[in-house]
Amino acid sequence: MKMQIGVIGACICDADLYLMAEEVGYEIARNGAFIICGGLGGVMEAAPRGAKKVGGTTIGILPGDNRLSPNHYIDIAILSNMGHARNAIIAQSCDALIAVGGEYGTLSEIALALKMGKTVVTLESRWEIEGTIKADSPREAVELALCAAGTGQDLSFF
Amino acid sequence: MKMQIGVIGACICDADLYLMAEEVGYEIARNGAFIICGGLGGVMEAAPRGAKKVGGTTIGILPGDNRLSPNHYIDIAILSNMGHARNAIIAQSCDALIAVGGEYGTLSEIALALKMGKTVVTLESRWEIEGTIKADSPREAVELALCAAGTGQDLSFF
Amino acid sequence: MKMQIGVIGACICDADLYLMAEEVGYEIARNGAFIICGGLGGVMEAAPRGAKKVGGTTIGILPGDNRLSPNHYIDIAILSNMGHARNAIIAQSCDALIAVGGEYGTLSEIALALKMGKTVVTLESRWEIEGTIKADSPREAVELALCAAGTGQDLSFF
Amino acid sequence: MKMQIGVIGACICDADLYLMAEEVGYEIARNGAFIICGGLGGVMEAAPRGAKKVGGTTIGILPGDNRLSPNHYIDIAILSNMGHARNAIIAQSCDALIAVGGEYGTLSEIALALKMGKTVVTLESRWEIEGTIKADSPREAVELALCAAGTGQDLSFF
Repeated sequence: MKMQIGVIGACICDADLYLMAEEVGYEIARNGAFIICGGLGGVMEAAPRGAKKVGGTTIGILPGDNRLSPNHYIDIAILSNMGHARNAIIAQSCDALIAVGGEYGTLSEIALALKMGKTVVTLESRWEIEGTIKADSPREAVELALCAAGTGQDLSFF
Repeated sequence: MKMQIGVIGACICDADLYLMAEEVGYEIARNGAFIICGGLGGVMEAAPRGAKKVGGTTIGILPGDNRLSPNHYIDIAILSNMGHARNAIIAQSCDALIAVGGEYGTLSEIALALKMGKTVVTLESRWEIEGTIKADSPREAVELALCAAGTGQDLSFF
Repeated sequence: MKMQIGVIGACICDADLYLMAEEVGYEIARNGAFIICGGLGGVMEAAPRGAKKVGGTTIGILPGDNRLSPNHYIDIAILSNMGHARNAIIAQSCDALIAVGGEYGTLSEIALALKMGKTVVTLESRWEIEGTIKADSPREAVELALCAAGTGQDLSFF
Repeated sequence: MKMQIGVIGACICDADLYLMAEEVGYEIARNGAFIICGGLGGVMEAAPRGAKKVGGTTIGILPGDNRLSPNHYIDIAILSNMGHARNAIIAQSCDALIAVGGEYGTLSEIALALKMGKTVVTLESRWEIEGTIKADSPREAVELALCAAGTGQDLSFF
């Protein structure tokens, strides 16, 4: 089974974060991993958009039940109809996660993922949460996430 | 976005149901749709196995949190960690469902899908639930499911 | 901890079923057990209404997130915001369940509860599901449910 | 319907936090509100324990499916069997929340509650999350939570 890397972030974001998330998605797909995200707008749109440029496979785990709500870059739509509780499904299903910017929803996902023992790499995070790994570029973020996912290792102490 | 067809059925099944589910999976993939299933054994293994013979894409929505629990024919594993409540996510995420045989878990999925207004086609069902459509062969089941999924139409009155 | 008995049934029901569900709720509370239900209308309203006549405690596990949606007879509102998946939480939280009439949603709950090994007593069910126990009156339904809940025993083979 | 106040915090805590959570529970119950918590140990045990001293009603929303897992001070056990996703149900069901200390799980609950627009009061939090209200004593925490719950007002800007 291929690696499943989560990209999490807010539904609305500025151009800088959007481009950053797009590059994250591109790098994940170029390395042959699947992208899992929330399937809506902002960071959740940019990452699968980047992945589709190199033919990646993208999965959106959505909060609602509307088959037409996923953005255009989502291949597979999981309609949880569970609101914010779907954040736990995203965190659980990923081998490692990359947070790009982010608001309260992203913070909840970071916390859930850390609680589950997953590696969480952050890019331009407004939160300083102990246990996350800060990356300086999309490329570095993906390298760190893939490394952690591949080894099942928690890199936060290095 | 491609169609997403669910194949539901018990974790343990006899050889006849297994072969039937395998053919269902094969036909779904041959028609270019994605398979969604519960990701465990029995019918949930046979259907993605059939799909992989023609290079289909298979999604397992699992009840637990173990990354190693999906069967070998699952490409994408959604680890719900929600036990039987994951049946609701399967029903919600599919454009139409095909039940092959089935026990109580399958019955709950059939009922949830009907409640959500989805078309449910049955093969060798032990339940006679009003609103489901009985098919005589795997091929017919897939044709009926794809037709319903494509038109968004409820075929149970024809 | 007191026993927790579920009363399940449709959101809209005729006067006969309403009165039956009300008597079920009354009997449950009179015997000192808590009522768990879906918190909306019809059977889910009648049962807690009956319970409140003898000062029972009533819990509604709701599909949405609206604090004002539970009916007037609910003491404690659990807002799952999980749509039909909340049926699994109801089934899981009850020591035994009583189905009064019921449509597809009720059928899904019956199936989930049986899958979890719970005793399900039915009153005026339109489904004949193997493993459920048919009662002839609200009082008998409550006696059977309390007996099963108290012993942890599956009474369906008697 | 009475107010429902959530008390969140870690499963294991030191004596200071335990006593603080117990006083929080006591004050909630003394003011006639229901307590909702995670139903396990540590802070989740101390708060309902405090509430029972004045005859309060206590609800535990548990991550698993074991009827015997709630602590001794829980009156009503909701067995979500949804792991960490149950944190979203707790946040959604409360009119306001009080976090006592807390680890990653608590952080996820704080973030989910803020995302849902709920007031979150903190006591001895190791996180400094914008939007939460810091209280200096259990009594003040409960006053702030009840005030926010009663008015439906977000007090974080005062």
